[in-house]
Amino acid sequence: MSHFWSSSGLDLHLDLQATAKRRSGLESALRAAIQDGRLPAGTLLPSTRGLARDLGLSRGTVTAAYNQLVEEGFLATRPGSGFTVTELPSRASVTTASPSASPRIRHDLRPGLPDVSAFPTGAWLAATRRVLTGARPEIFAAGDPQGRIELRRALAGYLGRTRGVVATPDRIVITSGYHQGVTLLSGVLAGRGITSAALEDPGHNVYRQAIQRGGLATVPLPVDQQGARVDTVPPGAGAVFLTPSHQYPTGVPLHPSRRQTVCAWARSTGGVVIEDDYDGEYRYDRRPIGALQGIAPDHVVYCGTASKTLGPALRLAWMVLPPHLVPDLVRAKQDADLFTETLNQLVLAELISGYAYDRHIRAARLRYRRRRMLLLDRVAACPGITVHGVPAGLHSLLTLPTMGPTEAELLDRCTEQGLGIRGLTELHHNPDDRPQGLLVGFAAASERAYPAALDALFTVLVSAYT
Amino acid sequence: MSHFWSSSGLDLHLDLQATAKRRSGLESALRAAIQDGRLPAGTLLPSTRGLARDLGLSRGTVTAAYNQLVEEGFLATRPGSGFTVTELPSRASVTTASPSASPRIRHDLRPGLPDVSAFPTGAWLAATRRVLTGARPEIFAAGDPQGRIELRRALAGYLGRTRGVVATPDRIVITSGYHQGVTLLSGVLAGRGITSAALEDPGHNVYRQAIQRGGLATVPLPVDQQGARVDTVPPGAGAVFLTPSHQYPTGVPLHPSRRQTVCAWARSTGGVVIEDDYDGEYRYDRRPIGALQGIAPDHVVYCGTASKTLGPALRLAWMVLPPHLVPDLVRAKQDADLFTETLNQLVLAELISGYAYDRHIRAARLRYRRRRMLLLDRVAACPGITVHGVPAGLHSLLTLPTMGPTEAELLDRCTEQGLGIRGLTELHHNPDDRPQGLLVGFAAASERAYPAALDALFTVLVSAYT
Repeated sequence: MSHFWSSSGLDLHLDLQATAKRRSGLESALRAAIQDGRLPAGTLLPSTRGLARDLGLSRGTVTAAYNQLVEEGFLATRPGSGFTVTELPSRASVTTASPSASPRIRHDLRPGLPDVSAFPTGAWLAATRRVLTGARPEIFAAGDPQGRIELRRALAGYLGRTRGVVATPDRIVITSGYHQGVTLLSGVLAGRGITSAALEDPGHNVYRQAIQRGGLATVPLPVDQQGARVDTVPPGAGAVFLTPSHQYPTGVPLHPSRRQTVCAWARSTGGVVIEDDYDGEYRYDRRPIGALQGIAPDHVVYCGTASKTLGPALRLAWMVLPPHLVPDLVRAKQDADLFTETLNQLVLAELISGYAYDRHIRAARLRYRRRRMLLLDRVAACPGITVHGVPAGLHSLLTLPTMGPTEAELLDRCTEQGLGIRGLTELHHNPDDRPQGLLVGFAAASERAYPAALDALFTVLVSAYT
Repeated sequence: MSHFWSSSGLDLHLDLQATAKRRSGLESALRAAIQDGRLPAGTLLPSTRGLARDLGLSRGTVTAAYNQLVEEGFLATRPGSGFTVTELPSRASVTTASPSASPRIRHDLRPGLPDVSAFPTGAWLAATRRVLTGARPEIFAAGDPQGRIELRRALAGYLGRTRGVVATPDRIVITSGYHQGVTLLSGVLAGRGITSAALEDPGHNVYRQAIQRGGLATVPLPVDQQGARVDTVPPGAGAVFLTPSHQYPTGVPLHPSRRQTVCAWARSTGGVVIEDDYDGEYRYDRRPIGALQGIAPDHVVYCGTASKTLGPALRLAWMVLPPHLVPDLVRAKQDADLFTETLNQLVLAELISGYAYDRHIRAARLRYRRRRMLLLDRVAACPGITVHGVPAGLHSLLTLPTMGPTEAELLDRCTEQGLGIRGLTELHHNPDDRPQGLLVGFAAASERAYPAALDALFTVLVSAYT
């Protein structure tokens, strides 16, 4: 219903929702009038008695509504002088747009991303309800810099049974994503006197920079068909960063003999091995190989993340550390941002304990396995293009024919087609004269969008090489 | 109903929930049996056909349940050899307890904490549901290092109308709590060639350390009855950190003439003023004084947080910056942890836009005002103890009689009584020969627990000084 009032010489058309509660209905009507300028700054509102009479409301209701709007800063009041509309400096600015964060992607084939359109919203909501209702208030207070014990307990069980990680809650540290974790860990290792670390070449360039910011020099570790050449770790290096279950980006697993080699290196030199198990959940031909950490738990830092299973938005990752590194890493975490946000930690713990996390991953595994096959079928029709790596993970590396456009030219054509995709070159420590290729993320798109994304990619590739 | 099966020579008592779905019921029953050891590692399970017959389930149901448990790592299977229970390295460790993060507090009078027992769980849940249902999948993908635009828009409006902050979304950066924000900002200022910053003395020692870690030397800025002596900023200092609305810990607001002085200093020297508006929402005698930032928006960094309104667990804080500082701070945030967790940002934006945030703060304000009065009544009965500061914030500073136990002795007695409370001395840059006192946080306890906490405190004080 709508009302017209003329008390205090002010005409105003107020839209009161018949459905809404009387007080909140009046509040929203007044807010709307102030926000769209019908009640300009300085306007004196009618007396509570007058408006109550006009609108057929109790005076108490009107007074409560006025006071609420005073609290919200829409109205001001001075004893004896009634209620007036305030000047709101930023009222206009609220609608100001901000520069978008990332370029427009029409076809998402970015590596390392899961299909977030399959986020288990229902399960997440249900778990959130369980966490919040009847929660002990302390969950809203300051948290443990090491991470919530509930999540560390759940992860200890989960990582043990699914990845063969030797994990106890007191060895686990939760960080706001792997990127923060690897940055803090690098700082801790630098604080221990380690000056340089060996990194897979090619490898993830973003983390290479994070490790350098942490204070470690990085030396390249060549990668071949058996994974990283861990036999070539230079004497000076005190740490080795590896992706043993599915080397990023080549997709080859670390050969069993090399797993033994690098663990022997760590035992004999006291060096630290960092195992980035970024996509260990996704193996499509058989059960995943267990984590390297299981072989030498006192020398390997195991790193896992929810970014590749649920989504990067949660900023949740975990490290399982040799006990002697835990206190330093917890201190570094505390210095950086005190502790990781609590609610997502508790919800994830709930999902893991109830096995909804396993179910979600299992369903995703079936979808991604299909998508990878679709990709391989397309490649088979493109002579000269080779797929590398085992059936696993969220991406495949394609290398390109020697004749034809360069990787850079291809990436330009992909961008023109709105394709989000990565090149191989930037992942080499020294990009010159290295094999060129494309990293195709087959998980990032939604089920519906994936076929069109493949079409767009292979339109570019076919026109480039035929 | 419960079942007994003897296929494959194995006797097992399985508790199937009559209510549960048949498949998930069987899964949980098997999980329970494995976890409590009734099905030891290596056990060969009955054939799917046999168990289906025994339990009166379809064979497909049993097969599906077995496969789920294989995915979860409880069972292993090899073609032709059936399903066996696996060895779970960490099955035992899951129950391992971890050292508690904070000492046992029976009576919580810690300063700077809100009453988290009043967290608006219902409103938070409802907002979470609105955010998640029908959400665009991108909210689960990588976020904006500057912070979600939805939250920055909501904050621009909220800070404008409630604190008089000149805020547009593009000036706002979201951080994982103020502690991270001040650390990153200090690094940015150090990168701009600023070597030292002036900090209130006494002031918050935790942030003093954060600012030093960020790379700035800190020089003390004395505090008197009109707030920080901003007229004494030494020539070398390129930044001044202030708590203008309610100086921490003394509780005095910065005098209007000094607000003008420090803004003039910033304009003439190009120095940066950092306004920590940590409890600006809580003023009990009249409307809060507007933010200092409103006077000189291009020279003042305004800092606010959800830690004092909803709870530290959310790790949500915001800075409103002079435009020239925004890109550097966004880059620093990205280097630290890419971006702040998304879901809480969207839920908070929802609460602010729907005014549930205002309502929550208003209700808290009424409770805290009452609690402060209760504290003052008790102090009035203790000759020699003085309360400092204006009616505002979440704590009051009490200074102590010169005769009697020292602050340190008092704090020991408080700890014996299970009182969580802070002393004044540690907040002085140089603790020697400084006035001693207690910081009483009247917000941290629950409504029910607060009176007993006051009793405990004044039992200690009365016995100490009479």
